[in-house]
Amino acid sequence: MSSAVASAALKARVKRPSMLKKLCSPEDLLHHFPNGSYLGWSGFTGVGYPKKIPTFLADHVEKNKLQGQLRYNLFVGASSGAETENRWAGLDMIDRRAPHQVGKNISKGINEGRIRFFDKHLSMFPVDLVYGYYTKEKANNRLDVTIVEATEIKEDGSIVPGASVGATPELVQMADKIIIEVNTSLPSFDGLHDITMTDLPPRRKPYLITQVEDRIGTNSIPIDPEKVVGIIESDYQDQTSPNTPADEGSQQIASHLIEFFEHEVKRGRLPANLLPLQSGIGNIANAVIGGLDNSNFKNLKVWTEVIQDTFLDLFDSGRLDFATATSVRFSPDGFKRFYANWESYKDKLLLRSQQVSNSPEIIRRLGVIGMNTPVEVDIYAHANSTCVMGSRMLNGLGGSADFLRSAKYSIMHTPSTRPSKTDPHGVSCIVPMCTHVDQTEHDLDIVVTEVGLADVRGLAPRERARVIIDKCAHELYRPILKEYFEKAEFECLRKGMGHEPHLLFNSFDMHKALLEKGSMREVKW
Amino acid sequence: MSSAVASAALKARVKRPSMLKKLCSPEDLLHHFPNGSYLGWSGFTGVGYPKKIPTFLADHVEKNKLQGQLRYNLFVGASSGAETENRWAGLDMIDRRAPHQVGKNISKGINEGRIRFFDKHLSMFPVDLVYGYYTKEKANNRLDVTIVEATEIKEDGSIVPGASVGATPELVQMADKIIIEVNTSLPSFDGLHDITMTDLPPRRKPYLITQVEDRIGTNSIPIDPEKVVGIIESDYQDQTSPNTPADEGSQQIASHLIEFFEHEVKRGRLPANLLPLQSGIGNIANAVIGGLDNSNFKNLKVWTEVIQDTFLDLFDSGRLDFATATSVRFSPDGFKRFYANWESYKDKLLLRSQQVSNSPEIIRRLGVIGMNTPVEVDIYAHANSTCVMGSRMLNGLGGSADFLRSAKYSIMHTPSTRPSKTDPHGVSCIVPMCTHVDQTEHDLDIVVTEVGLADVRGLAPRERARVIIDKCAHELYRPILKEYFEKAEFECLRKGMGHEPHLLFNSFDMHKALLEKGSMREVKW
Repeated sequence: MSSAVASAALKARVKRPSMLKKLCSPEDLLHHFPNGSYLGWSGFTGVGYPKKIPTFLADHVEKNKLQGQLRYNLFVGASSGAETENRWAGLDMIDRRAPHQVGKNISKGINEGRIRFFDKHLSMFPVDLVYGYYTKEKANNRLDVTIVEATEIKEDGSIVPGASVGATPELVQMADKIIIEVNTSLPSFDGLHDITMTDLPPRRKPYLITQVEDRIGTNSIPIDPEKVVGIIESDYQDQTSPNTPADEGSQQIASHLIEFFEHEVKRGRLPANLLPLQSGIGNIANAVIGGLDNSNFKNLKVWTEVIQDTFLDLFDSGRLDFATATSVRFSPDGFKRFYANWESYKDKLLLRSQQVSNSPEIIRRLGVIGMNTPVEVDIYAHANSTCVMGSRMLNGLGGSADFLRSAKYSIMHTPSTRPSKTDPHGVSCIVPMCTHVDQTEHDLDIVVTEVGLADVRGLAPRERARVIIDKCAHELYRPILKEYFEKAEFECLRKGMGHEPHLLFNSFDMHKALLEKGSMREVKW
Repeated sequence: MSSAVASAALKARVKRPSMLKKLCSPEDLLHHFPNGSYLGWSGFTGVGYPKKIPTFLADHVEKNKLQGQLRYNLFVGASSGAETENRWAGLDMIDRRAPHQVGKNISKGINEGRIRFFDKHLSMFPVDLVYGYYTKEKANNRLDVTIVEATEIKEDGSIVPGASVGATPELVQMADKIIIEVNTSLPSFDGLHDITMTDLPPRRKPYLITQVEDRIGTNSIPIDPEKVVGIIESDYQDQTSPNTPADEGSQQIASHLIEFFEHEVKRGRLPANLLPLQSGIGNIANAVIGGLDNSNFKNLKVWTEVIQDTFLDLFDSGRLDFATATSVRFSPDGFKRFYANWESYKDKLLLRSQQVSNSPEIIRRLGVIGMNTPVEVDIYAHANSTCVMGSRMLNGLGGSADFLRSAKYSIMHTPSTRPSKTDPHGVSCIVPMCTHVDQTEHDLDIVVTEVGLADVRGLAPRERARVIIDKCAHELYRPILKEYFEKAEFECLRKGMGHEPHLLFNSFDMHKALLEKGSMREVKW
């Protein structure tokens, strides 16, 4: 461990002297990474992930032409940086991966059968990890090495994470060995986290959170110092990408939703400042948060998974009182803004572990308004969040079902159509039957597209189908879906099986038309 | 209210004098039931339901040939007695119904389109009711009348339910008017309940339960006395049916499960006395509980929805320390045994509202072992709990997803095949793709049939398919499913969409073969 010298910046961040003695270079740690190792990384939605060791290992494989010879079981709370994980996938370094990922090479590896990926509710993943479910083939039931990024090491050896907490507490808890990358290019995030670890039943306790801003844990993640096999200085920031601006369709979706919230307030089913908001990632989510910024709502609160740039606007306009999540994933400009105005944001923000941010227990208690974007929704309000055509994995389930299963308002927002290669409206996002179901009809309350909003609360399936087709389907697809539904209804009622009418053997014919003729419009029932 | 005289038995049960003044006959209350009313009934799994008023109203409709002219929106925690609800369905008295039902006439009405039924997670139903979601078409957002069965009325006017709590607290909370049927043919169940009501966000609190036996509520359900429009004496017991004995297949399933539990204890993933057990209704569930009675496990605890006869055996053999649920649904003989040995059972049993018994918050905290029977399971571990052939409703979702979504061990047990009309193995319960999905692949850990047990924890979809087909499919279907899977895998990997391989347009061909040729065996891929 002689090849590294502590910089002044590093010394300022590492308050425990014994840890500084473990300072080393990535090369010194290579022997901890034999083929087949079970690895944990910190990180969530592309922030707070380790940078130096993964990059070094990728370089090592590339330089020595070890593609396919160093393959790992890799567990990260959600996605990490493209320059690490996606590069690993490109170098065939990932054998098994859970529970969520982003990156072209990764999804290529998954869908071509090289990467064994499984997606799990993000709230459940850390618990199942601590249950030993993902390491049950190993004699000691543990991860070999967990690599975590920290922005500070405290005197007691505990670490202060950066822009995400994710599954780091549990990944550290389950690790045989720990490597800490102290990132000195980021400010210390000390004070921004509320950390809880995971007890096992029968000794688990309630999460005593009844308000978005409640703190129930510590500022930093406890670490067993004897497990730490090395400390590395990390010198560049999270590599995020800029946000795309909201398009017209997204803005229409946002305005339908705001109108709906106003209606619910008027009917006494929502308080005037709404209830804690959860908002997914992407265009529509940004538009909804942007829309709230132009609404009359104030004293808003956010209980979500990821905090994005638009929330900064909502803070700045004074409409947002408090936001909590498991990561802040800003654009490069967003991070600049965040760091420049640290003092004005720091007391209104709290980062928790993904087990807490996505906890069904807390989501139901707080009455969260959950909003997510699916691949497709069907006429009975099932939704597909993961697999295109039932088979091709996009990114994974994420926290969609954590929120939609327990939220007070479970909302799916989607454009009514997407383009196919040959038809700007070749894909209807409203389909007769989802080709893969991640959210069931028992979970969704509201479906909204740029066309309109379908409120399916308390409706029987046949009523749901009518309102979803009428309110949400694109005008090109409304008659097509209506024809399917009416034919199915007639056939099934006649046979005494009409609770949720389907023409079972034609239920994917729109998908077939897309494959064979380039557009779902070409379907014939 | 002059037509009824209080019996001595009734006087002994009604401790609040002002309530006795409201004693009346069903006829006196007829005017509270105009066509289209929104009604709540107590009851859960056919116990604790109101008997006199529903029977009177059915008589009234029958006698006066009012079929189709008195139709109601009926909300009951789960199913009620056949002689009430099923008779109502036969007399076309049910317009809308939620969230669960049992009865030939009811499912006929649902599947022929006369009854608008929607099923909802049993834990969620009472919350959504209090949110006002099911009464949102009404100006006051409330139920018109709730009829509850009680075994005692206390001095403060609160009521002691009988063999179920179900959604009664919330049905009473949301009612404009309340009618109480005091059942003097049952013993008072005073002391057997732990009652909590529902607060709305942002004022909801944690359920401070960390052990199966914890009490957090009151002994009885508070009632606003001004809402009580009538008291009726009820004079017969819950009409339950005898249990069918466990068959050989069920016993094999039980023995696979017990072997699995022993393995998990050995690997340190389960304590020696296991964790709280949840067990569904039916043959297999009975066999599993019976199997535990012949195992080496002791000091067991139960956290479930319904307590059935087999649990009495487990109490009697000294293996079961405590059981809690939202209902005790015994057979007629079981109830006799229960009442005869009341003193020995009463301190080991607790009935809670279904919102608590099925609470994802508590189920996850306690690390419950959840076991349920589906209609079908697919090779990727999705399950269908509700709709045969995707369309025909059986009984509803019940609490299956409440438990399987949050349990530590999420277990689906099913026979590997069921008979069709012409083939004793005409229906494979393991299919390529479920025709309706209520439990997703992200929720299930274990699938077990009489053939064997598939442990799919931490497995990617293609691994899951292999182990489910190998371990669980009937030998007649193993090659058939394997052929489907391998063909799908080949096609999808080739196209770079092989995460969860499907032949999308042939995925229901086994169901087609069943319909067209009488057996799923006749499929050709």
